[in-house]
Amino acid sequence: MREVAIVGIGQTPVDEHWDKTLRLLAGEAIFAALNDAGRDQVDGLFVGNMMSGELSRQESLGALIADWIGLPGIEAMKIEAACGSGAAAARAGMMAVASGEMDSVLVVGVEKMTDSLPSETTSGLATAADADYEAAQGLSFVAINALAMQRYLYVSGWKHTDFAPFSINSHANAVHNPYARLQEAITEEEYHKARMIAAPINLLDASPTGDGAAALLLVPREYLRPTTRGYDGRGRPVITIAGSASATDTIALHDRRDPTWLRAAELSAQRAYAQAGVGPQEIDLFELHDAFSIMSALSLEACGFAERGQGPRLGLEGQITLSGRIPICTRGGLKARGHPVGATGVYQMVEVVQQLRGEAGATQVEGARVGMAQNIGGSGATIVTHILTAL
Amino acid sequence: MREVAIVGIGQTPVDEHWDKTLRLLAGEAIFAALNDAGRDQVDGLFVGNMMSGELSRQESLGALIADWIGLPGIEAMKIEAACGSGAAAARAGMMAVASGEMDSVLVVGVEKMTDSLPSETTSGLATAADADYEAAQGLSFVAINALAMQRYLYVSGWKHTDFAPFSINSHANAVHNPYARLQEAITEEEYHKARMIAAPINLLDASPTGDGAAALLLVPREYLRPTTRGYDGRGRPVITIAGSASATDTIALHDRRDPTWLRAAELSAQRAYAQAGVGPQEIDLFELHDAFSIMSALSLEACGFAERGQGPRLGLEGQITLSGRIPICTRGGLKARGHPVGATGVYQMVEVVQQLRGEAGATQVEGARVGMAQNIGGSGATIVTHILTAL
Repeated sequence: MREVAIVGIGQTPVDEHWDKTLRLLAGEAIFAALNDAGRDQVDGLFVGNMMSGELSRQESLGALIADWIGLPGIEAMKIEAACGSGAAAARAGMMAVASGEMDSVLVVGVEKMTDSLPSETTSGLATAADADYEAAQGLSFVAINALAMQRYLYVSGWKHTDFAPFSINSHANAVHNPYARLQEAITEEEYHKARMIAAPINLLDASPTGDGAAALLLVPREYLRPTTRGYDGRGRPVITIAGSASATDTIALHDRRDPTWLRAAELSAQRAYAQAGVGPQEIDLFELHDAFSIMSALSLEACGFAERGQGPRLGLEGQITLSGRIPICTRGGLKARGHPVGATGVYQMVEVVQQLRGEAGATQVEGARVGMAQNIGGSGATIVTHILTAL
Repeated sequence: MREVAIVGIGQTPVDEHWDKTLRLLAGEAIFAALNDAGRDQVDGLFVGNMMSGELSRQESLGALIADWIGLPGIEAMKIEAACGSGAAAARAGMMAVASGEMDSVLVVGVEKMTDSLPSETTSGLATAADADYEAAQGLSFVAINALAMQRYLYVSGWKHTDFAPFSINSHANAVHNPYARLQEAITEEEYHKARMIAAPINLLDASPTGDGAAALLLVPREYLRPTTRGYDGRGRPVITIAGSASATDTIALHDRRDPTWLRAAELSAQRAYAQAGVGPQEIDLFELHDAFSIMSALSLEACGFAERGQGPRLGLEGQITLSGRIPICTRGGLKARGHPVGATGVYQMVEVVQQLRGEAGATQVEGARVGMAQNIGGSGATIVTHILTAL
């Protein structure tokens, strides 16, 4: 297997892009990534997307986008794993390069969620759950997460207020990210007073929807040769995918032995740690999947950053901020950068690359060399973990 | 890159399975494939599907099916490339094995199309076309193919009646395939008298919808060691994926330089031929994508079996039958086996394996050693070609 490097990144702001179709958004991120890489050779395109069929009446996104960016002829396909589609597409693209089948692969995550009626978007998001045994019972996707949070509060003894640091941290970081959907800080008081969505999840526990696209350009690590201006000719460190793994769990929350433990996060993180030869203590920052504040706690626990049931403590002790032990959601996370579902996993990887290159501006984690991104599909049904390293 | 072998195949009948959900259909094909292989080790699952979100309100098929078959924990994702989703999933699964990332991969194509209102299915199929520039103009998917056929008749001089052999051949072969949707022969007179759908495409030019699933189990070729009962321990030949390639074209038919030439079929077939070290003359049978009779002619031409504009001649001269120069649609093709869109590409590969193993019964192509399968997404936007060989 060949090692794979990320040599280009691109993204659009996450926003209500009512003037941009799927292909326009994807193209904007792709051209930014190609420009960032200073390359234009592409053998294949892997598109992460969840709801284009439901909300835009458009499938065949691979061919659609390959055509739009002026590369009809290349191989292209769409990858779907609910809200984990972005990182799943990165996995598929990574394997295409690792296998030797392709030498240059574009991964783009793209989603449009705000051009539809809110009821259509809510209904579309419910397709991430078990249609027969969850959605058919009237459970929306936020309601499923509310059940998990309710249970977690009951078994762990934490209170809803203990989750405030997760949302406050994401919003604080998003202030400095020009691509974020909500570039505004929130206070603890605002968090407590936010209106209820599905108890105990209130508005400031939940990530906003959005339209957006993010892209990566992947090449074999061995193709990068040192020059006077560094390995990539631009004086930037080479970013290698040192760990990459994906695992599944039961699709329905109620089928899990323990609905407060992300088994697929644990499995995929363990595999990624083993591949990269690191452990949680070596991770300098962690872009986790804070679609709801409960998921921050569960991810930190399943990945070994906190003991079981102790996730909220990291927030309360200030360990998740930029200067803390394990900075999370450094560019705003899903909570404040926004959560265009099928694109999110690629946004996370773009943001880790920014950190490892030292391009994160006011949210830079000093001396970051090893970063992790974790993307979750459904209520924990598909979880994809990537560990990136800078050389 | 490691060579990849197909060691297990499974399929459900293509039918109106109103009593079976997506997971039940997929599971049935998967258990058949595992049983056929005599193996139960699985590292990853790649699901080919187009319309589960639109028609069954269910995404996240990877996790859904991994859970159902009792393997939560394994990596899983859904691949979409319109009607080419099945073979695209096989491509992704093949690369996972070739890369060394996985040692045992399940590929399953699954689609449910008959539990919805016909208008919903028609609308769902239109998502394979360009939503903004084709579907928005009121073009259904069959109407787009009708435009291509209309143009082909005009430039080539053939008449509609000259396409009869394609449909007659597919139906004749389906009579002997217990998994086929339409196990009945048709006559030339019936073909001519069939009611018009979208001129010049009549009912017997068009493939039927259906529910169904087909599955493959892939392992590294090098893992198969000779025993007293052959390489697979069951006295059957080893089936290797000798060629595998995918290419795209413009998504909209009207954007093509020549709407009667399948450029993506030509590109992917040329790559697959080069990988396998063969040409059209070495292919013993060809499972092509006869969603509409016009596509049979276009595929045969683009893949080098006929001169440009001469595809119908192969049918009229009897060269596409089981004893002809290039037998096509030997198990009924899309026209009569049926076309559960996202599953079709996997059905085609299962059928090629049946032929190369000598398990095709009354439709066996004598001495078949090299078989080709070609799966088309959209009106030619994504085309995936596989060449399988028997050792």
